This record gives sequence, structure tokens and C-alpha cells, in this order.
Amino acid sequence: MPSDLPPLFQPALILHGGAGAIHRSTLPPDLYAQYHASLLEYLRSTRALLDNGASALDAAVHAVALMEDDPLFNCGRGSVFTAAGTIEMEASLMVTSVNAAHPSEGIVKRGVGVMGLRNVRHPIKLAREVLERSGGKDERDADGGQGRDRGTDGGSMHSQLVAPYVEDVLARQWGLEFMPDEWFFTQRRWEEHLRGLRGEVETVAMSQGTVGCVCLDRAGGLAVATSTGGLTNKLPGRIGDTPTLGAGFWAEAWEEEERKRAVAVSGTGNGDSFLRTAAARTACAMSRFSTPSPSLAEAVSAVAGPGGELQRSAGDRWGSTGEGQGGIIGIEAELEDPVVLETGDAQDRTKLRKGKVVFDFNCGGLWRAWVEDSGNGEAIERVMVFRKEYQ
Amino acid sequence: MPSDLPPLFQPALILHGGAGAIHRSTLPPDLYAQYHASLLEYLRSTRALLDNGASALDAAVHAVALMEDDPLFNCGRGSVFTAAGTIEMEASLMVTSVNAAHPSEGIVKRGVGVMGLRNVRHPIKLAREVLERSGGKDERDADGGQGRDRGTDGGSMHSQLVAPYVEDVLARQWGLEFMPDEWFFTQRRWEEHLRGLRGEVETVAMSQGTVGCVCLDRAGGLAVATSTGGLTNKLPGRIGDTPTLGAGFWAEAWEEEERKRAVAVSGTGNGDSFLRTAAARTACAMSRFSTPSPSLAEAVSAVAGPGGELQRSAGDRWGSTGEGQGGIIGIEAELEDPVVLETGDAQDRTKLRKGKVVFDFNCGGLWRAWVEDSGNGEAIERVMVFRKEYQ
Repeated sequence: MPSDLPPLFQPALILHGGAGAIHRSTLPPDLYAQYHASLLEYLRSTRALLDNGASALDAAVHAVALMEDDPLFNCGRGSVFTAAGTIEMEASLMVTSVNAAHPSEGIVKRGVGVMGLRNVRHPIKLAREVLERSGGKDERDADGGQGRDRGTDGGSMHSQLVAPYVEDVLARQWGLEFMPDEWFFTQRRWEEHLRGLRGEVETVAMSQGTVGCVCLDRAGGLAVATSTGGLTNKLPGRIGDTPTLGAGFWAEAWEEEERKRAVAVSGTGNGDSFLRTAAARTACAMSRFSTPSPSLAEAVSAVAGPGGELQRSAGDRWGSTGEGQGGIIGIEAELEDPVVLETGDAQDRTKLRKGKVVFDFNCGGLWRAWVEDSGNGEAIERVMVFRKEYQ
Repeated sequence: MPSDLPPLFQPALILHGGAGAIHRSTLPPDLYAQYHASLLEYLRSTRALLDNGASALDAAVHAVALMEDDPLFNCGRGSVFTAAGTIEMEASLMVTSVNAAHPSEGIVKRGVGVMGLRNVRHPIKLAREVLERSGGKDERDADGGQGRDRGTDGGSMHSQLVAPYVEDVLARQWGLEFMPDEWFFTQRRWEEHLRGLRGEVETVAMSQGTVGCVCLDRAGGLAVATSTGGLTNKLPGRIGDTPTLGAGFWAEAWEEEERKRAVAVSGTGNGDSFLRTAAARTACAMSRFSTPSPSLAEAVSAVAGPGGELQRSAGDRWGSTGEGQGGIIGIEAELEDPVVLETGDAQDRTKLRKGKVVFDFNCGGLWRAWVEDSGNGEAIERVMVFRKEYQ
């Protein structure tokens, strides 16, 4: 829903479509062109929403739902198969706000993950229902949904829910769209599954990872949405970083001297390494606790960049097992103290602030799309997979 | 297994048996005496193991397995029931070491969580199998267990696994002990479940939370073990903080100037609040990243103490919904730089170093047992639930 709060920020956004051992030699031009076209399209439609005043949460869910319908990406339709030949999808959402007056401050649950999904068409939309349903019209009337009366909205204060119950019972009650197994089946992912079982090496770089989107809206709200089919040939019941608060996603705001800061990040790559380093929460903790206070860009590089926390977590197995490989995208925003804001001159008060879009990765490639500020007020759309342009 | 490394540390340990709205008026003397006796017994037997040279991992698993068999605690036998009248247990383990030569450095996976368990007698022992089985005799020979050849030990690099597969297939293959549903049934938890469904208030303070144990062994290894039945009348499939890396448990070591530091913590309380604040990882991140570097005790208080991060996460719902309530236990250890260690005088090199046992909580009580240093070398056993002695 569009927000009627006064605009304080120029909206910002970044999408990712997976990271991993993607190299020029395994990414033919036609496959590159398909990913590029999809990401550019989803970037544009999400940006249009934000420019029209949509909340960060609406925009991030919109972007990820589009990628869940696109068989190019490892999420929703196009998800990879487990070792047992099944699909088990995961998705997550987290919100925060640099502006205390922003509606996302009213979402008491802050972050959720859903896991083990088989037939929900848009796992990210199920995550949204779980995020917004807290156990009552007013959660204070109902024990916070912690046990007794769960109130009127069918929710609870639970942050993480695994199927079958959340899918077979709750998603049906809440009216989510279901699709049969065949709809999720793609020949490419099935062959990848079979090649994996036979121990063959992949010669074409499909997107292995998670998709994600981080948005900053005009009112200063931040949202991160992440969705995945997981790891090809994972054991059934493996819970990755995507639905795990702090591992594959995080969003947080805090006070500093004369300013409030907010960050939101989404990760993709080797999920078990993200879990072992609590990668998303660790990057945000560096921003918040270290002195001098690093930018989110510096913190993301210290975790997901070359030689960072993720790479070091693989120890001497780095480069031989896939461990530690990945990338993180995010947005950082800051706002002056309300007192400073009130007393500043009129021009300062009407000038739109800007968030900072950040990303880094330590592996072959990270599919990403974002809007860059040219410096003279012009916004430039960017879609990239390597550090340098694809040639 | 006992370690044959030269002893560097005096072993240390702390256990918890749950936190929550425990008050003198709802904790009758006979119930107090039962908890006290159990915790003291498990403290003694775990301490004896550590004094005999057991690894921190062996000792922590031993302590938690004892509590899983004791119907007083909400884990294993004595677990609470979900809203559907089922039991869904969770457990986790994480290891680290302040001493690079310590065997726990060889456990490549570092941390694991298992969830949704119904009939495994000791969830903590299943967690241990998952922790130690990494996908090969030598994980480097097998793609780190990430997909193709899973090697010879039946494991994978997965950090988090949810039932049924991990229980019905893996736990059986690995020879874990199973018990029928009746074994886990306790009349007290069943009545609590029924009272919860009817919306009645509890008048006797059973332990609501998780159990946990943190140990430091003679060689400088740290391990944290945590186990729970979860939240009374939780929705089926709710994943709490206990099996979630960074939320209900964390262990980590890092280099500082001329010293290495290591910390391990276990949490108990309102699990969804622990998830929303990544409580365990946040406390350890404060210790690691803030300047001046706070002690683990200070960081644990900043998260789980009165007015800390957990309490603040409940906002104006604090005190009315149970949100934010909880406690954290932990141990911190530090070791001089290997160069300083080598060049120090002989007495320094043979003197046993001491870890620091820490805890804090923001709610009525935290059941805890630990060994305190009297100051003159004597070790004093302590078992407490409130800030002051029970009277």
C-alpha cells in the first residue's frame, strides 16, 4: 500500500539472483541475456512501485514474487531438487525503519522465515502473511499469541515455521495460491539433480543461489525479501540460511549520536557457511558496534568480500568444496536526530535524502541489479554478474 | 574422549534449566528442592568429567543428556506439548577453541541444530552426530558433502536439519536410541497443555525453557549444548531459537592484540524474541567488535540483562506478553599470543589459566548451576534461580 507519510528519501533498491562459481566460460551469451533481461524487467517494475509511493515491504515482496515465477531462478518455479528428488522451498522477510513514524515500525514481529514448502506458488507471500499476522488485531489483547488466545488474525508471534503445518493448514486458511508439483518441475533443474547424483561437474552456470531484494521507501522504511529452493541435492529437511534470521538476511535500526541508522541485507551462496558465520547479522553488527563505525559497504565486504569472514570460515578447504562462497546485497540509510531535523533550515527539510546501495562477493559472480546515482541526479539502471561488464 | 594436550586451563562449566516468570510465590519449596537437587547432581558429574580431562564437547553433551532424561526440564522426556498435542524437540551444539592446537578446531562444521524431533531419546546426541559427520573421512575428498559424493561417514555439511528425515532415516542409521511417545509423556506437561488451551494462568512455576550447558576444557576448548521441547502450545512446525545458529546459542574465537579470545553462550526464554534479536550472536558480536572491548559478562547483560536488547525488543509490550523475557549463560576464555606464551617465564607457562563464567537474565528467575572461584583457589558449587538465594 502507498504510504501517505511525507517523503524523506529518494527510494532505492537492489535485487540479486544468486551467486556462485559463475565464470565467463560457463555462461554463454544466450543464458547471460536471459538473466539480464529478467533482472532488468523486475528492477524496473519494482522501482516504479517505489517511485509511486509503495512501502519497502510491498516492493520487495513484488520483486521476489516475480523471480519466484521465473524458472531461471532457484526459487519458486525453477527450484532445485533435493537428493530425494523433491522440492523444498524457503523464504524470508525482515523490516526496519530509519524513521520512527514509519508504518513498518508497527510490524511487531520484524522478521520471519518459512521452510520446507512444496506447493505454495509464492513462498514470499506466505512469509508476508506470517510476518503481518501476530496473534490478534491488537497483539496486546492476546498474550502476544504465545500460547493461549491467538486472537483474531490467525497468527502467532512465531518467527520461523516449517512445513507441513504452515503450508497445509495456515497457507490454505489464509488463501495463498497453490500449484501442483508439475508446475515447479523444470527439465534443467531435474537434469542438474541427476548429474549431481552421478557426480558430474556442471558445465553451464545456472543460478545456484537464492534470490533477494532490498528496498528503501520514501518514508525511510527498509525491507529485505529472500527466497530459494536451497541447495541442489541437499538432504531432505536441510534448513539453509535463507529462512534463518541473522544468517541469510537481517534488518535493523539503531541510534547513534545525532542520527539514526538503518541497514537491511540479503545473502546468497553457500548457505551452511552463512549459517556458521551468521553472515547477515555479523555484517550489520560490525556496522553497529565497531569503532570507528564502518559503513555497511565496508562491513559487507568484511564478511562477503574476498578474504572476508565467509571465505575464512572455509579454512584450508577454501576453493575446493564451495564452502564460504557467496555474496551479500544491502541498503543503508541514515536520518538526523528528530530535534536536528526540526531545527534545520527549510531547504534541508525538503531535500530528499539518499540511501546507499551496497554489495560484495568473493566468488565467480553475483547476479545483481540496482539503480545507481550518476552524481548529477540521474538514476542509472545497472545489471551485472561479474566485477567487470560481461563481454 | 579425554584430551592428551597439556593442560592450559582450569576447567569451567555452567548449566541452565530454563528462565521465565518464576517467582517465590509460584515456586513451592518441594519443587525448588527437586530442581536444586537435579542441577547440583548434573553439575557434579559434568565437573568430574572435565576434571578428568574430558573435552568440552563430551562434557556439555553429557550434562544435557542427563537433563533430557529428567522430566523436570522442558527437553527430551518432560518436553512440553504443541497446540496439536504433539511433542517437537530441538537441540543444538557449537564448538570453538581459544587454543589453535585443540581438537575442537578440527570440527569443521562448528555448529548444528536439529528440530522437529519426536522419538529420539537424546536430541543432543543426534546433534552431536550431525556435528561430527561432515560428509567424508576427510571432508576435502568429498566436495564437503555439498551435493555429490557424501563420503563414508553418512554426513553432510548441513548445519540445520529438521525431522522427519533426520530422525526417521539418519538417526536410525546412526544407531541413536528411540523411545515411544509414552516415554515422553508427563502428566504435568499434559495438564499444562490443557490449561493453556483453556486460557488458564499457571500457578506453579515449572521450568518453561530450554536447558543448556557451556563448558571450557583443560586444553582451551569451549562447547555449548542446548535442548528444548519449545514453547507450550506452539504451532506445529514452529522453529525456535534453540536449534537456530546465532539465536539461542553461539561460540566463536578471534584474535586481538597479543591474545586470542573465545566465547560460548546458551540462551533460554522467549524464543521468538531471541530470534528477532539474534541474541546469542549479538552478545558475542558486542564482545568482539565494540571498543573498548567489553567482557562477555558486560555483553550478556547488555542483551539479556534488565533493560537490555531482549527487553527493548518487546517495546511497549514488555511485561504484558512474555516477549523479550529470558536469560543467557556463557564462558569466556583468553590465551596469550603463541609467541608471548613461548617467551613467558616458566611459572607463567605452567600456571593454569581461568575462564570466566557469566550469566544474566531480565525476568523472574533463571535456573542455573555453576562452579565459582572463591578467590583462594577453592571451587564453590552454586545452584540458584533468583538473584538472591531462595528463602
